[in-house]
Amino acid sequence: MSADTNQEAREQLIDLAAQFYDQFELGEIPHMSVPTRTKSNIEYDEDKSVWVYGDRESTRSANSVRGARKLLKAVYTIEFLANQLEEDRSSTLRELYYLSESWDNEEAQFSDQDESNGLIEDLEIVSGVTREDFHMRPEESGATIMGPLHLREQTRRGEREIHCQEDVGEGGYQIPNNPDTIEFLDNDADFILAVETGGMRDRLVENGFDEEYNALIVHLKGQPARATRRITKRLHDELELPVTVFADGDPWSYRIYGSVAYGSIKSAHLSEYLATPEAKYIGIQPADIVEYDLPTDPLSDSDVNALESELDDPRFQTDYWEEQIELQLEIEKKSEQQSLASHGLDFVTETYLPERLDEMGII
Amino acid sequence: MSADTNQEAREQLIDLAAQFYDQFELGEIPHMSVPTRTKSNIEYDEDKSVWVYGDRESTRSANSVRGARKLLKAVYTIEFLANQLEEDRSSTLRELYYLSESWDNEEAQFSDQDESNGLIEDLEIVSGVTREDFHMRPEESGATIMGPLHLREQTRRGEREIHCQEDVGEGGYQIPNNPDTIEFLDNDADFILAVETGGMRDRLVENGFDEEYNALIVHLKGQPARATRRITKRLHDELELPVTVFADGDPWSYRIYGSVAYGSIKSAHLSEYLATPEAKYIGIQPADIVEYDLPTDPLSDSDVNALESELDDPRFQTDYWEEQIELQLEIEKKSEQQSLASHGLDFVTETYLPERLDEMGII
Repeated sequence: MSADTNQEAREQLIDLAAQFYDQFELGEIPHMSVPTRTKSNIEYDEDKSVWVYGDRESTRSANSVRGARKLLKAVYTIEFLANQLEEDRSSTLRELYYLSESWDNEEAQFSDQDESNGLIEDLEIVSGVTREDFHMRPEESGATIMGPLHLREQTRRGEREIHCQEDVGEGGYQIPNNPDTIEFLDNDADFILAVETGGMRDRLVENGFDEEYNALIVHLKGQPARATRRITKRLHDELELPVTVFADGDPWSYRIYGSVAYGSIKSAHLSEYLATPEAKYIGIQPADIVEYDLPTDPLSDSDVNALESELDDPRFQTDYWEEQIELQLEIEKKSEQQSLASHGLDFVTETYLPERLDEMGII
Repeated sequence: MSADTNQEAREQLIDLAAQFYDQFELGEIPHMSVPTRTKSNIEYDEDKSVWVYGDRESTRSANSVRGARKLLKAVYTIEFLANQLEEDRSSTLRELYYLSESWDNEEAQFSDQDESNGLIEDLEIVSGVTREDFHMRPEESGATIMGPLHLREQTRRGEREIHCQEDVGEGGYQIPNNPDTIEFLDNDADFILAVETGGMRDRLVENGFDEEYNALIVHLKGQPARATRRITKRLHDELELPVTVFADGDPWSYRIYGSVAYGSIKSAHLSEYLATPEAKYIGIQPADIVEYDLPTDPLSDSDVNALESELDDPRFQTDYWEEQIELQLEIEKKSEQQSLASHGLDFVTETYLPERLDEMGII
């Protein structure tokens, strides 16, 4: 992080605290308004092509003991974050929760980690500064990249220039917690292939798919960490690379695609920072289960519920997703991406992916 | 993997299949004996200082349809593995399960992945060849290393020389699935600090603990993958580095320590390959919860059960563990490693770890 970004984030936070002073001065009860974070309060922003919060707001106000305590905690947290930025330090969400035990005012201490996590989200929304720029690290680490990309990472120990094929082992390049410390130097990539499972990621690397197709293979490791989504978005926006998502053929994996493409409901305030709305879903599609005659498992009740809930989700209300989800409810089956191995270990790289990428106009 | 290792593993497998032929020739019913894999059938091997299987055995025999089917599956799997080694390919356990759907004999196909996983374990035990040398990759990927170590990894794309501080980003060096492809070149390390959580791993890296104390920080990422345990063992054996494990202060984390130090019951046949019996537990110890007045959570019923089961486990029957576990059952509390942050973000690197490492005679 540059000193400038630190200074800017710090000022945003202090502005927030200053608002409480202004409210006191005007004889108002101190308060803070944040958008309501529910599925019914997200809407599509046509200009930016992302889903953002609508107009409904919830207000934290000191007009109750509970509300006053919330604002007290916010003020203590703002002070902690401002100091952290001043000293160019960082911390995890869990450390913040434990640190609060050392605060002099017991009323300001968090009663559980959900409370401190929620407050950090509120502060992100109200200040317009991301958690990464507050220097709050996630517990979850980012995943890895393998492909024709040369980058420079600004670490606390100086700059590191790394080529994500030539300078890394078979494990690939480990994405740091804050990928905004990365500068892209040059690349020979044609597109990004974001892959859900480690087994499939390793298959693609073993088969040399990144070399043959100039693909940047980004491992999602299940539900992707913010760092993974952020670097995917930056690769798309800055290098103009198409993004494709390759996951299992079940409703939970469609949510993984959704979190890459649309962001999550809990973090719609970050859609512009994290989401890549142009990301396309390669598969496994319900149509692939039929077309490629893949080994399947029956849908469980919770799978069916999740599919029905997706049909209700505004982000999945496109012809494509409605058709695929309805087909899946009809065939009552799901398939994992590794089930392609039933046609042999090279089927995925020699047949399935080339066919799908061609259909999608990527290659 | 060298061609020699491939050839050796292949021969071991083919020898196994040949035994069935010999049994047929002698007019015997084909069979295969494997050690019983339960807690009551592991014993301490004084010479090697590791826990290994005792004398009890289970026999898979073709004297029932069920047993005959098991042996048929074993033979098909041996053929698949022998071909894979011949071609210098590899695959995941899940791919093997799906691949079996393409086998001509339906009776040889696996009915679920537990079955194929179990068979691979049987073959490891009977042949004395590890899964890695069969070229079976795990789904779980290894974790990362940060510290003063220079290594050479033999990848499918050629050799890569990497210094685990100077040539990597803040995320560190990603351990490959088979760390036996690594050669250690040189190092300035004094000891290994294997860390359970990502949040604590990042704290140590941010605070420069690896630089100040010449520590190799190995991220365990919860229950460590085989690759992580293997490289830890190799670092200990080949570089003569003491291994310390730093985890949460609860029974599940003692199991994480146990899997580094003693191996697991399911894989006692691999203890010599994966376990580092000299590994020492730094903490969080129940004694630390008291001494450092850490924030705690009450023990749940399942925590209490897990602690009691550890008291019964021969691997935990040492004065040290009995004292710690009994203390914990008495105080009825547990603490996470990140709870050290209640004394400030630098407490762990400036006070706690130096004190513990000094007590343990490591620094």
